Amino acid sequence: MKIAILPGDGIGPEIVAQAVRVLERLRADGLPIETDTAPLGGAAYDQYGDPYPEATQKLVRAADAVLLGAVGGPQYDTLPRDMRPERGLLRIRKDLNLFANLRPAVLYPELAGASTLKPEVVAGLDIMIVRELTGDIYFGQPRGVHINAAGEREGFNTMRYSESEIRRIARVAFGIAQKRNRRLCSVDKANVLECTEFWKEIVSDEARHFPDVELSHMYVDNAAMQLVRNPKQFDVIVTGNIFGDILSDEASMLTGSIGMLPSASLDERNKGLYEPCHGSAPDIAGRNVANPLATILSLAMMMRYTFGREDLARRIESAVQAVLARGVRTADIYEPGSDKVSCSGMGDAVMAAL
Amino acid sequence: MKIAILPGDGIGPEIVAQAVRVLERLRADGLPIETDTAPLGGAAYDQYGDPYPEATQKLVRAADAVLLGAVGGPQYDTLPRDMRPERGLLRIRKDLNLFANLRPAVLYPELAGASTLKPEVVAGLDIMIVRELTGDIYFGQPRGVHINAAGEREGFNTMRYSESEIRRIARVAFGIAQKRNRRLCSVDKANVLECTEFWKEIVSDEARHFPDVELSHMYVDNAAMQLVRNPKQFDVIVTGNIFGDILSDEASMLTGSIGMLPSASLDERNKGLYEPCHGSAPDIAGRNVANPLATILSLAMMMRYTFGREDLARRIESAVQAVLARGVRTADIYEPGSDKVSCSGMGDAVMAAL
Ligand SMILES: CC(C)[C@H](C(=O)O)[C@@H](O)C(=O)O
Ligand SMILES: CC(C)[C@H](C(=O)O)[C@@H](O)C(=O)O
Repeated sequence: MKIAILPGDGIGPEIVAQAVRVLERLRADGLPIETDTAPLGGAAYDQYGDPYPEATQKLVRAADAVLLGAVGGPQYDTLPRDMRPERGLLRIRKDLNLFANLRPAVLYPELAGASTLKPEVVAGLDIMIVRELTGDIYFGQPRGVHINAAGEREGFNTMRYSESEIRRIARVAFGIAQKRNRRLCSVDKANVLECTEFWKEIVSDEARHFPDVELSHMYVDNAAMQLVRNPKQFDVIVTGNIFGDILSDEASMLTGSIGMLPSASLDERNKGLYEPCHGSAPDIAGRNVANPLATILSLAMMMRYTFGREDLARRIESAVQAVLARGVRTADIYEPGSDKVSCSGMGDAVMAAL
Repeated sequence: MKIAILPGDGIGPEIVAQAVRVLERLRADGLPIETDTAPLGGAAYDQYGDPYPEATQKLVRAADAVLLGAVGGPQYDTLPRDMRPERGLLRIRKDLNLFANLRPAVLYPELAGASTLKPEVVAGLDIMIVRELTGDIYFGQPRGVHINAAGEREGFNTMRYSESEIRRIARVAFGIAQKRNRRLCSVDKANVLECTEFWKEIVSDEARHFPDVELSHMYVDNAAMQLVRNPKQFDVIVTGNIFGDILSDEASMLTGSIGMLPSASLDERNKGLYEPCHGSAPDIAGRNVANPLATILSLAMMMRYTFGREDLARRIESAVQAVLARGVRTADIYEPGSDKVSCSGMGDAVMAAL
């Protein structure tokens, strides 16, 4: 199990350090884990003048799985576009062909109070959003700013999806739905965009191979509404890169505790990059107060999806659940009466529960 | 005051009929109102084989303002793309150059219980979303489905914004912010899309002319989260057509009563098309149970924006508020203990309050 560790920027190094403790415990228990560390994003720019430098490329290409903290920080916002931390993230996704981004939005009963939605609307919430991650308007050419036919400056981008790109993400989503409640909702804007009408056609066609999954279609504007109105109607959602970016963030915020949500980005052979859904939180970086649980839960996803070790995934998830049940909380999920701990304090609690 | 009435499909004719009663009252009170009716959407396709036929084009071009019910219905979903009701809507917007779509998301205190969000999160909510309506990926060329260089079928669309398109919508949004709480949030995905990075640059530049408005910028994924986390942080939001489609629907659902929300779509000279934010609700069409208040409130917006009659806008809005305060409710906003009325019954109540 070759695991590349990319701490990244902001709180990244702190939260990744706690997840690495979990990995070390698994190694001590006999798991053949090899880890190596490299920079990504702003940290990589500082060291190598490139947010995704060659040393990092070499390491992650050779690895079976990648654990990433988070990238980005205000000091990098004025860099040229190609040097910014986000570009490092987009390039690693494309380079490793990580086309399937899985983002669960799960409400932990112990943290139900943190949601801004009424308890009855979100109790038991468990949605899986499958977002296509290497196509769409994120990567489509042509793009840029030019002078148009009317002699005016104009910005432009291109949304694109080929048949094979849609088929492979649809298959991943149907497969995940089969292991859950067998309902898949494909989100598009087929009434306006030909690209997503094509998406809808191909996803519908793939449904032939998954007769046990109930497929529905929803326009993206309606999906944004339904996530607020009645999020529990969803089991698995599949959508393109840009709609998935928006809807997965909306869905994760329904839980009220984005510091708890992991994500996986997989290639065709389940090689994956695992990272928390939250950002690099530069405002609290270096203060040992961040919540490491989303990163630790990302390790659980790694065990499940890349290494096929459901048992270890459950072991990590149970440890996190036990810690929550005991009332241990970092600042972001703190409620009066609970036991407030630091980032490393939360790591201690998880290690004890493991 | 030449007003074109387009009842449209589904519940459109029923809700528009109640708004027309309000118009007739204003005429009886001495307002120089002239109305004429034409079909749009599915109704127009049924009659003329075209969702935006010439008779309708002639009427709306000559009018000062247009009142629209809603368009669409399942019987039209299998028509060729160009014949579908939505195409009628997109064509009328483009034809009349209605580039500024104003969508308020306002919580009526009497209906606070209908929101799925906790009362303290949405109490007093009052956001204005300014959505660009005639540009972006909605209308950008090239578009379609073709065989790409790799010999594969591929769907594609083009996102585009020219400098002048961005400047004019920015000016509308800054102007609206000046009359409200003087805070404007421009939503983009500038970290990934050059088109929206250009948007951000031009909006920032326009800010020079509005030194009394505080401008901020937010990524669209974060905006989708912040609308759930803390919607009251927003005063006015300005964004492009597709992001505006998604965010305005999300924002309207925060109120829990989309049957209450009007919208205005304006051209450069405040000629406007006014319509409820909700759809044509084919499932309840013809049963006299729909909520006509969003359509009646759209008339109030018409008086305000096209005819500059703030007094009449307030008169209509006060009548609606009085009716709500008296506990009169259509089925969609009914709560035990309130007084349930039909669509025309709600019209009666508003007429009495006027
Ligand atoms: C940082 C940004 C480029 C990225 C994206 O838009 O994909 C982020 O929002 C995400 O969802 O991982
Ligand atoms: C019906 C559809 C074409 C339309 C849009 O996407 O603009 C609708 O969703 C709206 O927001 O008015």
